[in-house]
Amino acid sequence: MINQDSIVALATPSGAGAIAVIRISGENAIAIGASVFQSVSGKDITKQKTHTIHLGHIFEDEKIFDQVLISVFKGPNSYTGENTIEISCHGSTYIQQQIIQLLLRKGCRMAQAGEFTLRAFLNGKLDLSQAEAVADLINSDNEASHQIAMQQMRGGFSNEIAKLREELLNFASLIELELDFAEEDVEFADRTQFYELLNRIEFVLKRLIDSFAVGNVIKNGIPVAIVGEPNVGKSTLLNALLNEERAIVSDIAGTTRDTIEDELVIEGMSFRFIDTAGIRETKDVVESIGIKKTFEKIEQAQVVLYLIDGRWKMEDGSQNLLQVKIEVEKIRNQFPLKPLIVIANKKDLLSTVEIKNLQSEIQNILLISAKNNAGIEELKNQLLSFVNTGALRNNETIVTNTRHYDSLLKALEEIQKVNYGLQTNLPSDLMAIDIREALYHFGNITGEVTNDELLGNIFANFCIGK
Amino acid sequence: MINQDSIVALATPSGAGAIAVIRISGENAIAIGASVFQSVSGKDITKQKTHTIHLGHIFEDEKIFDQVLISVFKGPNSYTGENTIEISCHGSTYIQQQIIQLLLRKGCRMAQAGEFTLRAFLNGKLDLSQAEAVADLINSDNEASHQIAMQQMRGGFSNEIAKLREELLNFASLIELELDFAEEDVEFADRTQFYELLNRIEFVLKRLIDSFAVGNVIKNGIPVAIVGEPNVGKSTLLNALLNEERAIVSDIAGTTRDTIEDELVIEGMSFRFIDTAGIRETKDVVESIGIKKTFEKIEQAQVVLYLIDGRWKMEDGSQNLLQVKIEVEKIRNQFPLKPLIVIANKKDLLSTVEIKNLQSEIQNILLISAKNNAGIEELKNQLLSFVNTGALRNNETIVTNTRHYDSLLKALEEIQKVNYGLQTNLPSDLMAIDIREALYHFGNITGEVTNDELLGNIFANFCIGK
Repeated sequence: MINQDSIVALATPSGAGAIAVIRISGENAIAIGASVFQSVSGKDITKQKTHTIHLGHIFEDEKIFDQVLISVFKGPNSYTGENTIEISCHGSTYIQQQIIQLLLRKGCRMAQAGEFTLRAFLNGKLDLSQAEAVADLINSDNEASHQIAMQQMRGGFSNEIAKLREELLNFASLIELELDFAEEDVEFADRTQFYELLNRIEFVLKRLIDSFAVGNVIKNGIPVAIVGEPNVGKSTLLNALLNEERAIVSDIAGTTRDTIEDELVIEGMSFRFIDTAGIRETKDVVESIGIKKTFEKIEQAQVVLYLIDGRWKMEDGSQNLLQVKIEVEKIRNQFPLKPLIVIANKKDLLSTVEIKNLQSEIQNILLISAKNNAGIEELKNQLLSFVNTGALRNNETIVTNTRHYDSLLKALEEIQKVNYGLQTNLPSDLMAIDIREALYHFGNITGEVTNDELLGNIFANFCIGK
Repeated sequence: MINQDSIVALATPSGAGAIAVIRISGENAIAIGASVFQSVSGKDITKQKTHTIHLGHIFEDEKIFDQVLISVFKGPNSYTGENTIEISCHGSTYIQQQIIQLLLRKGCRMAQAGEFTLRAFLNGKLDLSQAEAVADLINSDNEASHQIAMQQMRGGFSNEIAKLREELLNFASLIELELDFAEEDVEFADRTQFYELLNRIEFVLKRLIDSFAVGNVIKNGIPVAIVGEPNVGKSTLLNALLNEERAIVSDIAGTTRDTIEDELVIEGMSFRFIDTAGIRETKDVVESIGIKKTFEKIEQAQVVLYLIDGRWKMEDGSQNLLQVKIEVEKIRNQFPLKPLIVIANKKDLLSTVEIKNLQSEIQNILLISAKNNAGIEELKNQLLSFVNTGALRNNETIVTNTRHYDSLLKALEEIQKVNYGLQTNLPSDLMAIDIREALYHFGNITGEVTNDELLGNIFANFCIGK
């Protein structure tokens, strides 16, 4: 299964920067590197120690491509477990291409997406869930998702699974041993201990499965629908929410990331804001299509912000808030379990009487001034209060990967079958089959049980160069 | 002048990739790195050899930021000449930011554009023209500009200047010595040798100054105006010219660069194509504005391609090419020295008679079929023939930097003054002043003479992290 050919790829983002790193892995990686590299001190990099760096030039015949640093890693002490070199060259796209083309001529082939990490897995440097965490880590864009990926990469999740799997495997062997002595009706596996283990496994599996809801929220962000008529200040509110984050980012010149206009990270938790048209009743066909869309967006959201201009008036000019109440009630009726915050903007333009009126008419109304950043902190706190981050704060293992979630569900199903069999005195041979099934699903997570198709699917989601 | 504070910056392009490299330089760089790094094998990186790599975790208090590799470079054996570490972390923008913010808290400050290279210059690791070549190298996007930058970075250009400067400095000292013995009317400096040196310097300076024309073309590309009515096949022609290049680029998955639609590199030389409307005479005001613009674009271009549909007909349906001839004549009259290629497209749709007619009516007409890629190679060769790449092919030093060009011009002026002074028996004290002036301009190129403002201007053009 293991390819011994040498693979090459750009490991740093494409585009121009100060430097770029080109990575080669494979049995001949160091030898190929040596064939295109002239050290300034005349050293032969094939004879150097692992984890050392060498200054020199990449060349072919008379032509010099670049002055570079080459890092030498000797297998098994490398990321992939194979011989590896990293060429740190000047960051021109032209130079990167020229060096990679040269290495292709010298016998490397282009790495496929995730192939370095696939090799690390195949060479036993990390298990499958750790390998998957590498991709999650690279994609992490907030504290929570980063923390979970780090934990998973360090083995927190798979250690727990692997330990349970081993205990279960132990019992499986004992029960299968009983089959050999079926005539004699012996019990090698202590049923009480086995029952205790099954309950423990069930408990852990259920906790992990439950954590997926949080994990999913952390990985994908919490969708928040903002419902409001035009000109009530939706975009000013979004900007007020986003501004602080932007300030932090722009402090670090040269590392500014592309801001996704409608995504906001509050205390490490990501919120995705969905702008909607209002839901004001109308006879206009086009507008009523808009209302239908608003309701669809509310359905997709996990939290709804209902935003009004605090100076809100009826058509007759009175500040009777009946219409607002009807609209809020309509949303509450259709989505009774969905958290809803009613917000009155432009607090700065309101009289004390008007403020009192708003507060007495609509329960728990939040008064803000998006323009002056007033009330924004409170809004953030209210948003955060909807997220159950208990597991995250207690540093518990959280499942974020759909594949893991799926395998955990299947494992739980099998474990419950085994448990039922144990309680109903199912013959050992039938119980052994269910245990094997459960073991299979455990093994699927950590990669002890695997197949090419599964690996193909997992690593295809990686970027090239990792 | 040398700052001993530690500077930090992202050295790889911003955005997500497999890995990112964060660079720290300064006296305390390794100590700062050690304060946030826990080696997996418990090593203390401040006690490790230079040019070694260490696996471990970046942490602060209880929080682990990432698993990283740290490369240790001890001054003066580093790029900047100072203690330096490079942290190779996972390529998530979030992680990059977190680690840089941590390092800022630990006492680093953000590096300014080009500050690593500025420090390398201040610490004598490279001279000024070599430092400038680093930026050119990163910006190089074709073989010619890359080759020139490599040559300059390896000292080709400044060595030549420095050698002449030293010889001139030698004579300056002798002539200034004569001033001390002015009463005695002695000549320490051999006038014949001095005259010979001045001529040699003049020759070299003129060659370098002349090379700037080529250098400029190489650095910025050659502007080529394509003149032609709509539907004669301008965009098909551009695509035919561009296609081969694209195929090469797309061979290397993951390194695809953004193609600039109208720039084409032929044998390492960059051509920039400028699309124009035709110059057909018209009474329409809007169209005649278009014609004026076409002429402006032709003026900016160094080469003109005049493209017609080979099936060209007069309004009466005859293939009398009078109008084409008039238009070509008009361009030739206005720009008598500008190379012009008349091209007839859609050769594949022409009869032998029509082809013969075109060839006899218009001298040197080039018949192509952009659609079928016929004649494209010949067009490329004709374009290349306009570029004097002799200097490039002979591996001569080529000046591409406007600042160098400027200093060379000024040095030449002073040298010519000295030469004239020598021939007219100018008093030594006056001649000494001119020599000093020339020395100053030489020194400006290599950085032996410099000032903060000059350095500020040069390094501000660098990217951050280099």
